[in-house]
Amino acid sequence: MVEHSGLDIMCLNKYSPASSSSSSSSSSNAEKKLFSKLKVSLTKKYPQKNAETLSAQYGTNLLLIGVSVMLALAQHGPAVKKEHLLAFITALMLVQLVWMLCYMIRRERERGPVPERDAHAGTSWIRGGLTMLALLSLIMDAFRIGYFVGYHSCISAVLGVYPIVHALHTISQVHFLWFHIKDVIKKYETFERFGVIHAVFTNLLLWCNGVMSEAEHFLNNHRRRLTALGYANLSTVEAEPHCNCTTSVCSMFSTSLYYLYPFNIEYHIFVSAMLLVMWKNIGRTLDLHSNRKRPSTRSPGLLLGPMLGLLALASSVTVLVVYLIQVEKSPQAAVSMFYCYGVVMLSCMCVASGAGLLVYRLEAWPMDTGSNPARALDAELLLGSSLGSWLMSWCSVVAVAAAGRGSPGFRWTCLAYSLLLVLEKCVQNLFIVESLYRRRRDPDDALATEVFCVTPPYDGIVNRGYETQEKHCTTLEGETPENRAAFSRKQTDVTLPVGNRLNVTPGRKRQILKNITIFLFMCNISLWILPAFGCRPQYDNGLEQETFGYSVWTTVLNVAIPMNLFYRMHSVASLFEVFRKV
Amino acid sequence: MVEHSGLDIMCLNKYSPASSSSSSSSSSNAEKKLFSKLKVSLTKKYPQKNAETLSAQYGTNLLLIGVSVMLALAQHGPAVKKEHLLAFITALMLVQLVWMLCYMIRRERERGPVPERDAHAGTSWIRGGLTMLALLSLIMDAFRIGYFVGYHSCISAVLGVYPIVHALHTISQVHFLWFHIKDVIKKYETFERFGVIHAVFTNLLLWCNGVMSEAEHFLNNHRRRLTALGYANLSTVEAEPHCNCTTSVCSMFSTSLYYLYPFNIEYHIFVSAMLLVMWKNIGRTLDLHSNRKRPSTRSPGLLLGPMLGLLALASSVTVLVVYLIQVEKSPQAAVSMFYCYGVVMLSCMCVASGAGLLVYRLEAWPMDTGSNPARALDAELLLGSSLGSWLMSWCSVVAVAAAGRGSPGFRWTCLAYSLLLVLEKCVQNLFIVESLYRRRRDPDDALATEVFCVTPPYDGIVNRGYETQEKHCTTLEGETPENRAAFSRKQTDVTLPVGNRLNVTPGRKRQILKNITIFLFMCNISLWILPAFGCRPQYDNGLEQETFGYSVWTTVLNVAIPMNLFYRMHSVASLFEVFRKV
Repeated sequence: MVEHSGLDIMCLNKYSPASSSSSSSSSSNAEKKLFSKLKVSLTKKYPQKNAETLSAQYGTNLLLIGVSVMLALAQHGPAVKKEHLLAFITALMLVQLVWMLCYMIRRERERGPVPERDAHAGTSWIRGGLTMLALLSLIMDAFRIGYFVGYHSCISAVLGVYPIVHALHTISQVHFLWFHIKDVIKKYETFERFGVIHAVFTNLLLWCNGVMSEAEHFLNNHRRRLTALGYANLSTVEAEPHCNCTTSVCSMFSTSLYYLYPFNIEYHIFVSAMLLVMWKNIGRTLDLHSNRKRPSTRSPGLLLGPMLGLLALASSVTVLVVYLIQVEKSPQAAVSMFYCYGVVMLSCMCVASGAGLLVYRLEAWPMDTGSNPARALDAELLLGSSLGSWLMSWCSVVAVAAAGRGSPGFRWTCLAYSLLLVLEKCVQNLFIVESLYRRRRDPDDALATEVFCVTPPYDGIVNRGYETQEKHCTTLEGETPENRAAFSRKQTDVTLPVGNRLNVTPGRKRQILKNITIFLFMCNISLWILPAFGCRPQYDNGLEQETFGYSVWTTVLNVAIPMNLFYRMHSVASLFEVFRKV
Repeated sequence: MVEHSGLDIMCLNKYSPASSSSSSSSSSNAEKKLFSKLKVSLTKKYPQKNAETLSAQYGTNLLLIGVSVMLALAQHGPAVKKEHLLAFITALMLVQLVWMLCYMIRRERERGPVPERDAHAGTSWIRGGLTMLALLSLIMDAFRIGYFVGYHSCISAVLGVYPIVHALHTISQVHFLWFHIKDVIKKYETFERFGVIHAVFTNLLLWCNGVMSEAEHFLNNHRRRLTALGYANLSTVEAEPHCNCTTSVCSMFSTSLYYLYPFNIEYHIFVSAMLLVMWKNIGRTLDLHSNRKRPSTRSPGLLLGPMLGLLALASSVTVLVVYLIQVEKSPQAAVSMFYCYGVVMLSCMCVASGAGLLVYRLEAWPMDTGSNPARALDAELLLGSSLGSWLMSWCSVVAVAAAGRGSPGFRWTCLAYSLLLVLEKCVQNLFIVESLYRRRRDPDDALATEVFCVTPPYDGIVNRGYETQEKHCTTLEGETPENRAAFSRKQTDVTLPVGNRLNVTPGRKRQILKNITIFLFMCNISLWILPAFGCRPQYDNGLEQETFGYSVWTTVLNVAIPMNLFYRMHSVASLFEVFRKV
């Protein structure tokens, strides 16, 4: 509570008789006071909103510096080189390392009361998943170090330092995430706020860097293929070191790297989303009711969803392999096959999400309007990251509409695929958002009314559901707890038979929802795997390129595909959350 | 309250004895019930969060369809023409017209209790400003109609229909803004929600269209100039009609259009921001305390700020004229002059904003944490629209760092200008955000403590300022209102002399803040005028183009300059708000 005392001191100053008796003091004394007052108010009680704005601006500018260096790099000019970018990122990572160390030491030394923790931030399974991704990133760093050792005589030392620092950064960051991501910081806020936002944007920059390297590699491969097929004559600009490798496995290192990139990319974007939640939690006062984490329920009858999901996964892997082989020989056939597969897949997903929404409409269960930064961010990120692939889809639609008679035969499948992609994301977003915002039904239904009647934290917007509940609650007001329990037992007794008659009991509904969720979960994994490992028919079909030109279309794809990859991974994480909650 | 009754009906169904006595009814009856339940829950009590998500998705996709058509247009291919885009936009405007008509008729017919109104949304001066911009847009439509009449024999009829519909749209939209923008809609939410979001994104699309046309025109002029100077040989692709104009003023119409574009562009983006606030207000419950609009205070001593501001404005207009003349002859000298002017201007703005922040630090006045969507949006838009010019500045910094010895002499001024631009936006954003979030000091200071002690609407985050106040309030708890008034009178009596001694009384502080605000207001107008009317040295200096290449740099500018224009206009509006509030 050190920081909060600023105003108190001043108030005491104002009201104490000492201050009025000193009215005869000299003007220099007064000036000294003014400055000490200023000093206190600059260091101690800087308002929260300002600190937020300032730190957000700091972080954004860090990212923009990195992005502008990347834009210069994309030009392959003589002045800006990969080393410059890597040196900048290395410096940022070192700063983050120092900050994390300071933070952990300070936490260790305090040993005061246990700090408040946000139960919704970084659940253990998400931390487990991140640890897996981090391990793959570490393997990638090992490959990079191996590559540097092989070529050390002719490449910059930065290329050797970067993977070492990155490995250190990964290890300590995972440690930080396991033990401190749930912390709700209330002390030394300014220092922590800058540290956390620095970490957020360092990871975001690492994500951008990964995306850029990956896109460049993919485009180079694409160009090479087009040249080999005789479609175009574009020279590749991949920089190879000017000396021979001293070990025998250099080429193995550099090719394996690109299979690990997708995991590294997801790792960084996920970490930055988690850290952003931590940043939003700084100075927050937790609402104890909504911060309770309830155990997940287990339910039998999980058969149809997982089976269909596994089928989708298996067929996706098959499509991926066939596509990658086929596209070298006849791109048209490969693209055609992909679109047919996509139409079937997306239709199933639309139907599943729609069914989930219908099940929700069948029960009048209120939404949870409590404050929860992690959940709000989840919903925003889902909508935000959909934008990329929506733009891509609408561009495809425009291209199909603009294409003449001589255009390839798959254009109608392409149209159907694009429209379904838009629809599928809309319906799936609705399903996920509704699931996340649904108030949790307690396993023991007898308690339902009590949970029901707790007034939600008031956040300016009143949910319609609550208005009616409040009416309901007022009718129960005169009753004793015993009466109420009896009432609610009666209520469930009455409700259940009605449900049974309609063959949609709450248990049955939950079973349907669980099946739908697990199916969507697997489908989203499938749709992540395909573009992540190089199945990108948008580059190969030539349809959009005709209407939009090579450079515009490539720019759209370079933005949209990473967003789409993030969308799929993020919806996988959200669906897992939904699965545990239903 | 028609829509809210869905849950009530269901609850009655559940608990009434009728429902338990009907347990013997047939299964077909039960199925009928299930479907009617589903129907009720689909139409009547759709949860707010879902309706929000669904309508946001609808709006975003409308915009993305438009953007993808624009991207195809930018390619100047044979299939997609300007007419297609205009036809699409015209259709959207007609839908919006119909919706606004329905809305107003419905409101007219109800005549029930006066609907709640959000005092913070669309203040009268902002609506006045918008009306001015709308008038200029109407003149633009008149020019467009005149242009169509002149060339009607050889251009598409869509080019004639579009300005007519746009004029109608503008008139009825301004009417709508004047009388309904403050409405807090609580009835028929789904219909209104879709209507409002449709209006938001229609205006956003009109903004995009304006920005695109303007950028294309500017780039064509730029190319023509470069060709005339012998720097490049780029062919322009401006489409001229294939027949002669039947009236004598066609060329006058088409050239005047481009002087009106900046106003039209600002009009549409402002309207969409206001409508977005209306959308966020749908279904909101107003907090009566914070929704009180207090009269603005008048203060004497406004001299230095306005004078310096007018000086800045006059010098900017001079710089604009000199630049536009000079750049045709010697771009280097013109660019050099611009950067020198910019460095002086931005330094003054940094100092002014910094001084404002220092003044705020001198008084321990708490922040207002009440819910206010209009204000939250203001702050977000300020930060969001800064991104564009931050990216531009960092690209300039990278370009200067990468430039060799042979580069032009103004590169150090360019570096200073870019860094100052970043700093200025950071400091100004902090100043504006702090001003907007500051709790208003009542004109009669004796009431201060009372306002102080009102518990703020709890929104999950507790402001540090309040914690200390609450302590203070508890010490006053036992007192009667008379005692409290006496106490607060004593308090002000004590406070004021202390302030006087330090020569910074609250009145003096307010005077300083007013001067700073008016100065920044005029400076931002100046910095809007310059790029809006064609002073864009970023195109003419050639420095960044060398590092980033023509296409990347033009893309960055085409995104960043409209964002920067919006930023300046938006900060002008925010500073006016601050001026009235201080």
